[in-house]
Amino acid sequence: MQITVLAGGVGGARFTRGLLDALPPDGPDDPPSVTVVGNTGDDITLVGLRVCPDLDTLLYTLGGAVDEAQGWGRAEETTAVARELAALGVGPEWFTLGDRDLATHLARTRWLAQGLTLSQVTERLAARWGLPQQGVRLLPATDTPIETHVVVDDEEGGERALHFQEWWVRHHAALPAHRFTVAGLAQASAAPQVLDAIRSADLVLLPPSNPVVSIGIILGVPGVREALRGTRAPVVGVSPLLGGRPVRGHADACLRPLGVEVSASGVAGLYADFLDGWLVDTADDPGTVDYPSGLRVRSLDLLMRDQEGAARLAGAALELGRDLLGATAGRG
Amino acid sequence: MQITVLAGGVGGARFTRGLLDALPPDGPDDPPSVTVVGNTGDDITLVGLRVCPDLDTLLYTLGGAVDEAQGWGRAEETTAVARELAALGVGPEWFTLGDRDLATHLARTRWLAQGLTLSQVTERLAARWGLPQQGVRLLPATDTPIETHVVVDDEEGGERALHFQEWWVRHHAALPAHRFTVAGLAQASAAPQVLDAIRSADLVLLPPSNPVVSIGIILGVPGVREALRGTRAPVVGVSPLLGGRPVRGHADACLRPLGVEVSASGVAGLYADFLDGWLVDTADDPGTVDYPSGLRVRSLDLLMRDQEGAARLAGAALELGRDLLGATAGRG
Repeated sequence: MQITVLAGGVGGARFTRGLLDALPPDGPDDPPSVTVVGNTGDDITLVGLRVCPDLDTLLYTLGGAVDEAQGWGRAEETTAVARELAALGVGPEWFTLGDRDLATHLARTRWLAQGLTLSQVTERLAARWGLPQQGVRLLPATDTPIETHVVVDDEEGGERALHFQEWWVRHHAALPAHRFTVAGLAQASAAPQVLDAIRSADLVLLPPSNPVVSIGIILGVPGVREALRGTRAPVVGVSPLLGGRPVRGHADACLRPLGVEVSASGVAGLYADFLDGWLVDTADDPGTVDYPSGLRVRSLDLLMRDQEGAARLAGAALELGRDLLGATAGRG
Repeated sequence: MQITVLAGGVGGARFTRGLLDALPPDGPDDPPSVTVVGNTGDDITLVGLRVCPDLDTLLYTLGGAVDEAQGWGRAEETTAVARELAALGVGPEWFTLGDRDLATHLARTRWLAQGLTLSQVTERLAARWGLPQQGVRLLPATDTPIETHVVVDDEEGGERALHFQEWWVRHHAALPAHRFTVAGLAQASAAPQVLDAIRSADLVLLPPSNPVVSIGIILGVPGVREALRGTRAPVVGVSPLLGGRPVRGHADACLRPLGVEVSASGVAGLYADFLDGWLVDTADDPGTVDYPSGLRVRSLDLLMRDQEGAARLAGAALELGRDLLGATAGRG
């Protein structure tokens, strides 16, 4: 079974790792076949180095090298370079590059400078982390550099735009956002294999990633939304909101500027044109909450407390996907 | 007293630190006034980062941050980034960038990319290491990127050129060199203040740095040799060879391709057109060895066994310089 996942950072990576745990191998020697399309809107250039936070979180998590408590960055990380950069007055104080993590950015920057695409760079990094052996292919949503900006109030009563990372990491998404803009997105094209991975999948999954600044950015890459609408695969999503609150991150602060209700139902509405199945928390049971018509909604405990919990959740998404596949086959 | 020093890496840095120890302050609150012109021929770009080995050795040594046993690199250094780069298959295996050292290269590369000259970058790094407070100004010999290459035999009976660092660090200068070439040198110009620092000095010192690939490169920067010939300051050098052998480094392997005798006298011959005073080891006493005529030669124990030994040696160079100054004044 070919599964395609559209993922942001921590939530997407944990869900995808759970998916690999939940998926039985296709055959005795066949790993599962999972394509992960990662968000690149958070990408940023720091001290001349190209940083791709979501792709790296996916790489480290699937490679078994992530800082588990934090959810991103490398385990047993040190910060010798960052401390020396601070002594030199170089780089933003609000973003600490760990030493091991920095090597990833150095390699990526070097390879990009040599003319490789972000897809090719990501393929090399994925090889270092053993993703192919796990049957996982990691694709950036686009090879075109894009950057999510957040428009907030400035101090003179006007507006200013800041890089998403600055808003998220430095200001903890606490500056009220008026809107999000994505530099380069309209001119971007989907990275090679992305549209095909959606069109030819047996199942498309949306992890509980941020619907605006993670999955929303991927959906904004020209062609992606159309591929989702057109694919014959069921598209199954997991709500990032439980009882109207995000488990982690700041999905609420991202939904409000869009005028979208901060709820499992509100997020489902964002995906209504292509979503077939929707997993929500028991707090958002379809018996008590209205969802877009035609959407197959199933409720369960959505919290990924640990890797086992993530596998259980991914298993439920797989099951819903299989049920929908069966229904589609029945319709066919 | 204005002193200008033309320096390579380890030997030049240790000698210059000894000089600061040996120099009395000009006044109660006046630090000494020392300009160090550093060799940039060893500079190399690794993993996209601009590395200036000799300037860095000078910075770390004068800044009290050098690895004393090794003579270069940072004390208490770690190599987390380098190990990860190796896992990624990036960068040459024969050159290990320490984490703290790497931050210097990152900052330098960033600042150069922003349009600063190497002089301006070096001034910023010198500020981080407290050089101005010590009365020291560090100048690269040139802001023009230059690179020393070594021509050796290739495997098909022809010749090939490799970067000086590869010859020195990877091959330990053991591949017989046919000649040295310096890419960019003929078109280079001396960095701002370099020629003036030589012309307007009260004393010019040549530490026991490599006469070919360190001081020789500085001398090759257009205008430097003329400035040395024209300065009214005495020029006092310290032999890098003791009894015909280098204390450290591979001066012998660098002199042979030039057809220059591997001796204190041979090196003095390379400087004959501007050298006034020459400190040699007791093994090379002018009573037993011939030196260019007109050269004031003084012998002593040249080994810099420790920082105190370096101060003693620098003190002897200062004394010879003062004697020559007195003689010049007497002649005037």
